Amino acid sequence: MNAPAPATHLLPEVVQRPVPEALLVALQERFGAQCSSALAVREQHGRDESAFTSVPPPAAVVFAESTQDAADAVRLCAQYRVPVIPYGIGSSLEGHLLAVQGGVSLDLGRMNRVLSVNAEDLTVTVQPGVTREQLNAEIRTQGLFFPIDPGANATLGGMTATRASGTNAVRYGTMRENVLALEVVTASGEVIRTGTRARKSSAGYDLTRLFVGSEGTLGVITEVTLRIYPLPEAVRAAVCSFPTVADAVDTVIETIQLGVPIARVEFIDEGTVRIVNQYSKLDLRPSPMLLMEFHGSPAGVQEQVESVRALADEHGGADFQWADTPEERTRLWTARHNAYFAGVQSRPGARAITTDVCVPISRLADALLASVDEAKASGVPYFMVGHVGDGNFHMGYLIDPASTDERERAEQLNRQVVARALALGGTCTGEHGIGLHKMGFLVDEAGAGAIGVMRAIKQALDPHDIMNPGKIFTV
Amino acid sequence: MNAPAPATHLLPEVVQRPVPEALLVALQERFGAQCSSALAVREQHGRDESAFTSVPPPAAVVFAESTQDAADAVRLCAQYRVPVIPYGIGSSLEGHLLAVQGGVSLDLGRMNRVLSVNAEDLTVTVQPGVTREQLNAEIRTQGLFFPIDPGANATLGGMTATRASGTNAVRYGTMRENVLALEVVTASGEVIRTGTRARKSSAGYDLTRLFVGSEGTLGVITEVTLRIYPLPEAVRAAVCSFPTVADAVDTVIETIQLGVPIARVEFIDEGTVRIVNQYSKLDLRPSPMLLMEFHGSPAGVQEQVESVRALADEHGGADFQWADTPEERTRLWTARHNAYFAGVQSRPGARAITTDVCVPISRLADALLASVDEAKASGVPYFMVGHVGDGNFHMGYLIDPASTDERERAEQLNRQVVARALALGGTCTGEHGIGLHKMGFLVDEAGAGAIGVMRAIKQALDPHDIMNPGKIFTV
Repeated sequence: MNAPAPATHLLPEVVQRPVPEALLVALQERFGAQCSSALAVREQHGRDESAFTSVPPPAAVVFAESTQDAADAVRLCAQYRVPVIPYGIGSSLEGHLLAVQGGVSLDLGRMNRVLSVNAEDLTVTVQPGVTREQLNAEIRTQGLFFPIDPGANATLGGMTATRASGTNAVRYGTMRENVLALEVVTASGEVIRTGTRARKSSAGYDLTRLFVGSEGTLGVITEVTLRIYPLPEAVRAAVCSFPTVADAVDTVIETIQLGVPIARVEFIDEGTVRIVNQYSKLDLRPSPMLLMEFHGSPAGVQEQVESVRALADEHGGADFQWADTPEERTRLWTARHNAYFAGVQSRPGARAITTDVCVPISRLADALLASVDEAKASGVPYFMVGHVGDGNFHMGYLIDPASTDERERAEQLNRQVVARALALGGTCTGEHGIGLHKMGFLVDEAGAGAIGVMRAIKQALDPHDIMNPGKIFTV
Repeated sequence: MNAPAPATHLLPEVVQRPVPEALLVALQERFGAQCSSALAVREQHGRDESAFTSVPPPAAVVFAESTQDAADAVRLCAQYRVPVIPYGIGSSLEGHLLAVQGGVSLDLGRMNRVLSVNAEDLTVTVQPGVTREQLNAEIRTQGLFFPIDPGANATLGGMTATRASGTNAVRYGTMRENVLALEVVTASGEVIRTGTRARKSSAGYDLTRLFVGSEGTLGVITEVTLRIYPLPEAVRAAVCSFPTVADAVDTVIETIQLGVPIARVEFIDEGTVRIVNQYSKLDLRPSPMLLMEFHGSPAGVQEQVESVRALADEHGGADFQWADTPEERTRLWTARHNAYFAGVQSRPGARAITTDVCVPISRLADALLASVDEAKASGVPYFMVGHVGDGNFHMGYLIDPASTDERERAEQLNRQVVARALALGGTCTGEHGIGLHKMGFLVDEAGAGAIGVMRAIKQALDPHDIMNPGKIFTV
């Protein structure tokens, strides 16, 4: 076992499993130039957007170009009982991609073809390396779009594996609701299919939903069939400022309780507005703010807007500023999506320790206000954004990665945010996943009994613990 | 093994496992009057609405009144490795409740309390024996409703276990989308919880979705947390007749493709209209017919109605007949819900062999037209209804249960309906589940690889195969 560097002291204790030379030779023989053991390539695949920076990289990287490639890579690794870590584009925030037990990174990024678009059924089948922006660019001309939007231009395989969601989930659901069918390489290298293109089914165990959110620990996703949607006839986007965090959050709670089918409703606090303004050269009013988008028929959108405006008025919301052209909307949402990078760059040299929790909407004000107050009181620089229509929000604590003290203070804030969310009937992660970082919190949330069931499933489907081991829970 | 009677020749071959007298004594000691071995009680629990009529009843029935009761019953049965068959209200259509390997029926019907209603979060937590009509009666006064409506007044535990859906699924989704959290007694008698009241989560394996649709084979559902919805401000319901089946179905396909958020859209063919008219004392025009319901704001409903009316006009739809008062709507939907009973009673002494399939909406006309034509050509009396907005429809073949020939002809029709649905990219059951009747079809649909994964999960979570054994797939 490698001696842990100070900055990794919060990593679960892990053992680097041996990677026999014979496996590396066999991979090289099978994959030739599609297999690399160059340090730079390995290092690029051994990190993600999490704050864990000092785990050794994987022993090799295989670039799969087909399902057969993925199956062969898994089969070879299985033969030597060596870990396989599926890799999309590296946008994980919770350490999913780190080779904490060593092994081989399986990069699916070259499997990036949209295999079929069925406009009549509103379904699409893609390879796992297709990113959401690529998919939307390919289907937009047919008047269609895929709404799930976690901010990062993640791959659809990665989004499936982490049960991602993002800004449009309040109306269109998450990957849980929008994945219809999968092709998966199991831990033995077998290729299976789950689900069909039918919208619903009662045919046996819901394996599709089992693999959605399994974070690469049960198999490698090699094909994804998704629901897509007609581009709405009318779209309006707006920002609205509020005197206090509570006013903004209460406006959202009432909007949801009224059943308004708002498409996006994002919250950022005053400090984060300043950070976004600076990074994206905007001049949004520096106060708690909602960013909203409405989809529907022109009359339907107008009706939604009027409902929300009336609620905002009651909470002191300043006039809506509209972004009605596609260009204005893109500018607004790009600024929102860049909040993470804006946050990280607002403190030179910093890394972000992020956390994301989700609570029942009635508890959102309690959860969010206390989290913001604690962050302010701690003195740790932070940013915060929230997909508040779902009761979901993120905190990002900006730490000097060399400072054990700052890291510990940030992790303490994280623990408080999560503990409060659980006490309020919520979950320790709304959309980022468990990865390495929240394994302890998952035990708090699910209980030993449910973890035992998860572990039994893992052991049944991956008896040698080679699929992304050391993530979600200990085996 | 019991010699199979002629009418059960299509049952999978099963062995009645022994139920030791010591277990019956132990159950009697623990449960007293809550445990019955009276023949009438056992027989009532040994059948459902399926066409399988000659399986021996369970050895005893335990009436659980609490989670502890359910856990103790399972633990005692586990000790003797005796099957446990969870029972709600007996409305299964596919043989889920039959004691094909003997064992004990665990009746959850007395666990029928609504435990909490959270109007602010639009969630409710119920015991498994609460029926959907009971739930709606309890929450209606708060302006709320639970939309999933399979027709039968099923229990919410049973609806969860079969991943039920029904008439409102086109807009509100199925049990898959509407169950947030569960309490489950596992095969060892341990009580676990899955999910939270948060609307979304990425916290570990989606055990909730694994138990939804597991048909009692992985554990006993003892508590269900559901999403509920505000009663719509405006509701309009209508029927519309069409010259041909194709005209009606094409109207639905175009409605869905246009993205109209219709709440219900049901199809019945001409023969079924006649059956419904006779049973429910109605005078609907005897031609292919759509029954529709629209939910929303008054303006939104008007907009939907105009869109659908324009599409119907293009397909020769006769004028909409409106059912605008709650009483008229209830009469209309009651008639639709009674279609199954109307069908069965239209041939005195008959049993129905039902099948339900779901296909991608673009293939619905192909699937449905051929199925109706084959039924007509076969001479077997039938009825048909369809939740066509989902691409889902049911055929019911009315057979003399004593006639092996009629049964075989009906099963041949069933095989053709399913084979066609699978060839069109659909599923062998949209909402009734696999049960006993579709185990072979599930292999055709999912493939040996996926069945192997299901079997591995079952063996991991229920190593002695005591939870509703002999259903979904063979272990």
